[in-house]
Amino acid sequence: MSKGIIKLNASFVSTGNAVGKKEYEGPLGTRFDIHDKDDRFGQKTWEEAESESQRLALNIALKKAELSFDDIDAIFAGDLLNQCVGSSYGLLGCMIPYFGIYGACSTAGEGIMLASTMVTHGVFDRVVAVTSSHNCSAERQFRTPIEYGGQRTPTSQWTVTGSGAFIIGDHNIGNVKIKAGMPGRVIDKGVNDANNMGAAMAPAVCDTFLRFFKESGTMPSDYDLIITGDLGYEGAAILRDIMKIEGYNLGDNYTDCGILIFDQATQDTHAGGSGCGCSASVISSYVIPEMEKGNIKNTLFVASGAMMSPDSIKQGKSIPAIGHLVLFENE
Amino acid sequence: MSKGIIKLNASFVSTGNAVGKKEYEGPLGTRFDIHDKDDRFGQKTWEEAESESQRLALNIALKKAELSFDDIDAIFAGDLLNQCVGSSYGLLGCMIPYFGIYGACSTAGEGIMLASTMVTHGVFDRVVAVTSSHNCSAERQFRTPIEYGGQRTPTSQWTVTGSGAFIIGDHNIGNVKIKAGMPGRVIDKGVNDANNMGAAMAPAVCDTFLRFFKESGTMPSDYDLIITGDLGYEGAAILRDIMKIEGYNLGDNYTDCGILIFDQATQDTHAGGSGCGCSASVISSYVIPEMEKGNIKNTLFVASGAMMSPDSIKQGKSIPAIGHLVLFENE
Repeated sequence: MSKGIIKLNASFVSTGNAVGKKEYEGPLGTRFDIHDKDDRFGQKTWEEAESESQRLALNIALKKAELSFDDIDAIFAGDLLNQCVGSSYGLLGCMIPYFGIYGACSTAGEGIMLASTMVTHGVFDRVVAVTSSHNCSAERQFRTPIEYGGQRTPTSQWTVTGSGAFIIGDHNIGNVKIKAGMPGRVIDKGVNDANNMGAAMAPAVCDTFLRFFKESGTMPSDYDLIITGDLGYEGAAILRDIMKIEGYNLGDNYTDCGILIFDQATQDTHAGGSGCGCSASVISSYVIPEMEKGNIKNTLFVASGAMMSPDSIKQGKSIPAIGHLVLFENE
Repeated sequence: MSKGIIKLNASFVSTGNAVGKKEYEGPLGTRFDIHDKDDRFGQKTWEEAESESQRLALNIALKKAELSFDDIDAIFAGDLLNQCVGSSYGLLGCMIPYFGIYGACSTAGEGIMLASTMVTHGVFDRVVAVTSSHNCSAERQFRTPIEYGGQRTPTSQWTVTGSGAFIIGDHNIGNVKIKAGMPGRVIDKGVNDANNMGAAMAPAVCDTFLRFFKESGTMPSDYDLIITGDLGYEGAAILRDIMKIEGYNLGDNYTDCGILIFDQATQDTHAGGSGCGCSASVISSYVIPEMEKGNIKNTLFVASGAMMSPDSIKQGKSIPAIGHLVLFENE
């Protein structure tokens, strides 16, 4: 019988984030550490802009904690770009021992879980989890060629331009603790519409929630906030439905980072935000600060990821997805 | 001051590997668990063939240990394909909690290190590290379009068609123990020739070796075998040179998986083998079995990875690289 829940005992030392113009114009705009008005972050290419946003998020987190690169024992980093170049180029020069991870949009959850595991067991003292996405680098990679006048479908999501960095250290340092984690399993229920990633990811997120609630003996109502990474409006509604069938009512405390980050009525983002940077920027700018203030006591965060590639979709394959869970508490 | 070496205490429960025709025809041919004569592993596309080889390697490792999917607590998997689809599709249906990792060709080392960390600290009982590469899926992704009659340069390497799976468990189970790990740092010395990855990776591998020898107080001569992942002839020669400048003679016990897997004189593979599957198949078929027999007492393995993408090269960027170290001992 395999173990599911990883017991963790670590805390957020600090966080940092950097977002683009549209994210700044959204409901959480003033909460982000910095934004760039043209999404370029001073760089020549969109890929370099994404790398730069990761570097900025990390540097902001370090500055808040009055730490330098030398104070960080290891970094878990990843992104959506082919061969995760957003991270490898973004973190060049830091000279911090580097673990590359790939969980598609679930990377923030995977990174926080692995970094917290390292700290919990004294392998390292301070570990960073960082991730990013950029609307333009993602559009170029996943969506081109786009027909002239092509319409986005109602279930399509808007890749967030943003990065989030989390410095994780001893449980005594920060108010907000990371208390548990549960890695997701790769689930593919046959959805092959790359413009409906919410539907592809909801079953994988559901799988993780069901295993977690069962093993922990808790219910959704035991959590002040239950938040998924980037299911968006479509995926979040599906998740509510399939959880209900399984006997769990996610209730009013459930929301999704992709729902929170944009204003659906005015920002033309259809089913909501997506991308590694979606949950990374929302968790670092909104969830952890609200927990630090004591407004939220405990949060179940399941980072969602759709792990197809443009080639696998062209080859007619459906979309494998995953949901990585981490539990935060302000004791 | 950041920590470098991770103390580990785990062992290899079993390993499995699956390779292609060319690898079977090479010097290690008879050591591999299985091979496929047309590199397709019964699949329709090269990408599916790569996924299938991962599945085969994992299943062989499980069979040798008389274990099933349910006995595995987590899996660390990754590959070279965009969005790591070799792994996400390859491991679909296993229903094993899944950590996606990306270290380019260093993935085997990163996976073994993280899996061993989990076991050492009792987070999980049995963890799998698995990775793959496929010559044809890699050529399609990294090399096309290839001009008609295009010549491979002398420093170019041949991506290995192969997978390797490592089941890692309690230190009491297997003869061959994983005793230490050291994550690499992302290093870029300005090499921008995607046909000379050995040169790009050697400085990153050197960085890890220097940190390891310094922190451990050991010398290359303390190890029966020092083996790198896929520096090939070119990169291994460069590594010897730059290590010598730093005062370390790697000696006769140093070799490289990319050198071992093909016969340079007859197989037309130029500077040797490369790819995630290169070190994974050589370590699982040759190094660990030789250690089990007692022919090698201790091995320093540094898995090498070049973390560029075709797009980053086209954008004129140089190649960031990494070297992840793991130490094996037969006590």
